[in-house]
Amino acid sequence: MKKPFVFINAAMGIDGRITDWKRRQVRISCEEDLKRVDVLRAESDAVLVGIGTVLADNPSLKVKSEKLREERVKAGKSPNPLRVVLDSKARIPLNSRVLSTDTETLVVVSEIADRKKLMEIEKRGVKVLVCGKNKVDIQSLLKHLHDTGVRKLMVEGGGRVISSFLREGVVDRVYVYVGGIAFGEGVSLVEGRLNPPVRLELLNVSKIGKGIVMEWKPENA
Amino acid sequence: MKKPFVFINAAMGIDGRITDWKRRQVRISCEEDLKRVDVLRAESDAVLVGIGTVLADNPSLKVKSEKLREERVKAGKSPNPLRVVLDSKARIPLNSRVLSTDTETLVVVSEIADRKKLMEIEKRGVKVLVCGKNKVDIQSLLKHLHDTGVRKLMVEGGGRVISSFLREGVVDRVYVYVGGIAFGEGVSLVEGRLNPPVRLELLNVSKIGKGIVMEWKPENA
Repeated sequence: MKKPFVFINAAMGIDGRITDWKRRQVRISCEEDLKRVDVLRAESDAVLVGIGTVLADNPSLKVKSEKLREERVKAGKSPNPLRVVLDSKARIPLNSRVLSTDTETLVVVSEIADRKKLMEIEKRGVKVLVCGKNKVDIQSLLKHLHDTGVRKLMVEGGGRVISSFLREGVVDRVYVYVGGIAFGEGVSLVEGRLNPPVRLELLNVSKIGKGIVMEWKPENA
Repeated sequence: MKKPFVFINAAMGIDGRITDWKRRQVRISCEEDLKRVDVLRAESDAVLVGIGTVLADNPSLKVKSEKLREERVKAGKSPNPLRVVLDSKARIPLNSRVLSTDTETLVVVSEIADRKKLMEIEKRGVKVLVCGKNKVDIQSLLKHLHDTGVRKLMVEGGGRVISSFLREGVVDRVYVYVGGIAFGEGVSLVEGRLNPPVRLELLNVSKIGKGIVMEWKPENA
């Protein structure tokens, strides 16, 4: 199947948690790592998150650095990569930052999503893709993204989306920043049973700022 | 307070899980790492696990390498370090490997443990320490261990014990091996809310075999 190069990037504590016990994002990364993540975003054609992340954190998913945005424009691209939200039931609040009209967004839903809500989303000038019966069909989505020119897709979470992508065997790389914090409760990097577990090959590890970055290659890709 | 040098050592997948979804230990480490862990055990005066780990995995907690055991004996020590089991309700099965009489073991219970069971344990020649009302009082336990000559204590898990030790602020080092596997469900390295989260300083990271070893220093120690 033709699909974009898919990589996951996320930051976790030493116990694999990516949120605190209230399921809210807490600053795990250091300054140096936030810059690394911004570069990864700027190098991507699209960035993807699940609806859980939108509801919990309301991210804008834009490139922070003006310089990186300018470089994209010079290269004939939009300032920011396409934002993709996995939202099978179309639960996304219309005032979510990710629906701002200054940057392109694709809301991906399943056939069970409420049609009225879809029309409201589209009325804002945001594209909607119906893809899958009860939940989003990741394989079809990746084919669609490739067909529309996306060659590099960054998956930013949360745990359930990361689990789905790993389970489907479509992930080319996993970048994990490990920061010096332990939560003991909260959302983990991968949320949702992988049976059998997914094996990964270590490609790289390095210190960055006050933490480390690991680079893994799933063996089922 | 006088206490032993306390270090945690555990192996986890990239998502922080130390077991599979059935809460059973799965081989995460590589050969090289198992040797590293055996050396850590041999260098310790005592190794500690929670009753959950005993019930799930029935470990023997002995030094695997004959050479390392001989070196301990040459240095005037027992072949294996003291085994310590945290078992507030005295649930330990009498046929657990950790109760084998060839190596010293201390079962640490709280005042709610059944007295008859304690007598049965002691009848096997295994020491029992009552320490804490409803659950084991870690600070008192550490004082007791120090008083009886334990200067270096290795905490091997599971997640609930690791959480308790981190919460108490008694941990001097955390060694985590990260192996190339993702589970998506199972026991995490730290199980039990840390509120506030525990911050740690990165001391070291290195590749070992097919994974990495991180060394962290809790800031509340």
